[in-house]
Amino acid sequence: MSLKKGYIHIYTGNGKGKTTAAIGLGVRAVGDGLRVCMIQFMKGRRYSELDGLAHLPNFTVVQFGRDEFVSKEKPEQIDIDFACKGLAYAKEVLHKDLYDVLILDEINVAIDYHLIDVKEALQLLQDKPPHMELIFTGRYAPPELIKHADVVSEILEIKHPYQKGIQSRKGIDW
Amino acid sequence: MSLKKGYIHIYTGNGKGKTTAAIGLGVRAVGDGLRVCMIQFMKGRRYSELDGLAHLPNFTVVQFGRDEFVSKEKPEQIDIDFACKGLAYAKEVLHKDLYDVLILDEINVAIDYHLIDVKEALQLLQDKPPHMELIFTGRYAPPELIKHADVVSEILEIKHPYQKGIQSRKGIDW
Repeated sequence: MSLKKGYIHIYTGNGKGKTTAAIGLGVRAVGDGLRVCMIQFMKGRRYSELDGLAHLPNFTVVQFGRDEFVSKEKPEQIDIDFACKGLAYAKEVLHKDLYDVLILDEINVAIDYHLIDVKEALQLLQDKPPHMELIFTGRYAPPELIKHADVVSEILEIKHPYQKGIQSRKGIDW
Repeated sequence: MSLKKGYIHIYTGNGKGKTTAAIGLGVRAVGDGLRVCMIQFMKGRRYSELDGLAHLPNFTVVQFGRDEFVSKEKPEQIDIDFACKGLAYAKEVLHKDLYDVLILDEINVAIDYHLIDVKEALQLLQDKPPHMELIFTGRYAPPELIKHADVVSEILEIKHPYQKGIQSRKGIDW
């Protein structure tokens, strides 16, 4: 089933809920018979969401990253390589037109960290099949992307236990 | 599997992504072996997300509402009855302690519309089993709830096609 016009969505901001909002949108799309792919940038850990999503038909998750912290000032070559491979995979997905919804999880951060050039991200918008929904998540969404997006949500952190130094918890935060 | 301390989460604001963020959190929790219940207030439509979530083990969705528009100024008795039943169901879920994550979807709006008294919502916080995660979604979260919450995300609408008068679309927006 294809939608007539697919939008470009952005979930950004410093609050909790960006990746989960994209996942929830994917769950909704799967419920409507659509095919969803989520490419995770800068993530290599076996997050609990992957085990949850494994139950869903037509929801594919591919990770391009590792579990280590990436330095914004001095990213390692392996982090740049992972991001480039993720970008190449995204291009292939767009080109082959195998999905109705493509989530580029944390790509905004990969752009902000200069692992991916913003021009490459803008090229993805050009390559998007008209029916496909394309979703960018992560803090620091670049203005160039926001300019071209149809739906932009900024999630603000009003309150968070991290503010009190409390650690994140498996199953809830990751 | 139970977490040591369950938080009170709020997803509010005028932007897209509140219900989907809660769903995504639920998917993550299910992936970690937790049991999730979502009670939807003021909703009676067979949303696509329900068909997606039907694939997941241990993710229960119960609706208390109807598909008709609810007037804030003059809600009908049936809308008040639905909300009261949803509240009673939430109390039962808390009392029986059958779930690890309880999502009260759109309850903030039900409070804002005076279908539910804010004191009743605050009582839910008192009744929460310590391990349970309790999630409130919807615009207009009352300050009394925000005061007692651990995690509060406000989702701002930066851009949305509705601004241009474009209708919502099945599979993506509902």
